[in-house]
Amino acid sequence: MKIELGAKNCLYPLPTVLVGALVNDKPNYTTIAHVGIMEPNAVSLGMNKTHYTNKGIKANKTFSINIPSTKQAKETDYCGLVSGVDQNKAYMFKTFFGKLKTAPMIEECNINMECELVKTVDFPNHDAFIGKVVATYCDELVLTDGVVDFDKVQPILFVMNDRSYWSLGKKFAKAWSAGKELDK
Amino acid sequence: MKIELGAKNCLYPLPTVLVGALVNDKPNYTTIAHVGIMEPNAVSLGMNKTHYTNKGIKANKTFSINIPSTKQAKETDYCGLVSGVDQNKAYMFKTFFGKLKTAPMIEECNINMECELVKTVDFPNHDAFIGKVVATYCDELVLTDGVVDFDKVQPILFVMNDRSYWSLGKKFAKAWSAGKELDK
Repeated sequence: MKIELGAKNCLYPLPTVLVGALVNDKPNYTTIAHVGIMEPNAVSLGMNKTHYTNKGIKANKTFSINIPSTKQAKETDYCGLVSGVDQNKAYMFKTFFGKLKTAPMIEECNINMECELVKTVDFPNHDAFIGKVVATYCDELVLTDGVVDFDKVQPILFVMNDRSYWSLGKKFAKAWSAGKELDK
Repeated sequence: MKIELGAKNCLYPLPTVLVGALVNDKPNYTTIAHVGIMEPNAVSLGMNKTHYTNKGIKANKTFSINIPSTKQAKETDYCGLVSGVDQNKAYMFKTFFGKLKTAPMIEECNINMECELVKTVDFPNHDAFIGKVVATYCDELVLTDGVVDFDKVQPILFVMNDRSYWSLGKKFAKAWSAGKELDK
């Protein structure tokens, strides 16, 4: 039987990421999972306006997305608990830069994407930043035959409904393929 | 060692969903996984302009998001393989309507959200539809103590890098909690 839940967002799980930006010329990282993809090379970040990191994204028009693994869950959660206003969080990680000089990235994360800000969608309490991926870096250990293997990445998946972190399960089918047998 | 991959989007996995819309007054469903959350009650759909469903979303300014389970992977993949131009896909499912009268939803999916179109971000080849969740419905079997339990939902997670579907793993930590011990 169907139950009505009210206007409850259930578009989960989403990957938990560490967003990097230079704020007042210093690297800062914050944790979010309200992310998305708008077209193959465009990502979105839904970030509460209270985040310190938003200042840096607006000032430099660049940011990074760093994908932590389940082994980094404590550090990742911590970066969402404390604000860069009060705490220097960059000391927790080794920062590196790529092509853009204002998008600090986290060496210890398996995957890093440096992005240019393309557009901001303004919500009452949130800035939704839309970025174009400029370059991507990964640890060679997460590749299988040259392709990023999420079984090795071990991303931290987030569900708001019960405020929880989840691991990724098993690869069980090929996309654009599993449904072919129904095509008759 | 870090390897540079070029401008490779690795913001995965994302949940695979069936998007519903009325096109020429008939329910149509298509499969996408380029989705996201922009603020707690706002969702985004990154949809190639070639999708038949886009017409209906633009005409009615409403759509639905239906979350299929791993058991529905074949039907879900099929809806992404064939176009509503050529094939009536609605016959595959039992359609129901909620508060909005132009956002058809799939009875067989565990979770359904009916949404109002708030804004469209125009990319060269994609419409990025941003919607507000108006009402959400779920099968009572996916609730635990009144909260949606993703262990019961069993969503189909999508990774573009190797064009694959994945299951959800295990809940392993609480968000806004796991990092507290580092706060010193």
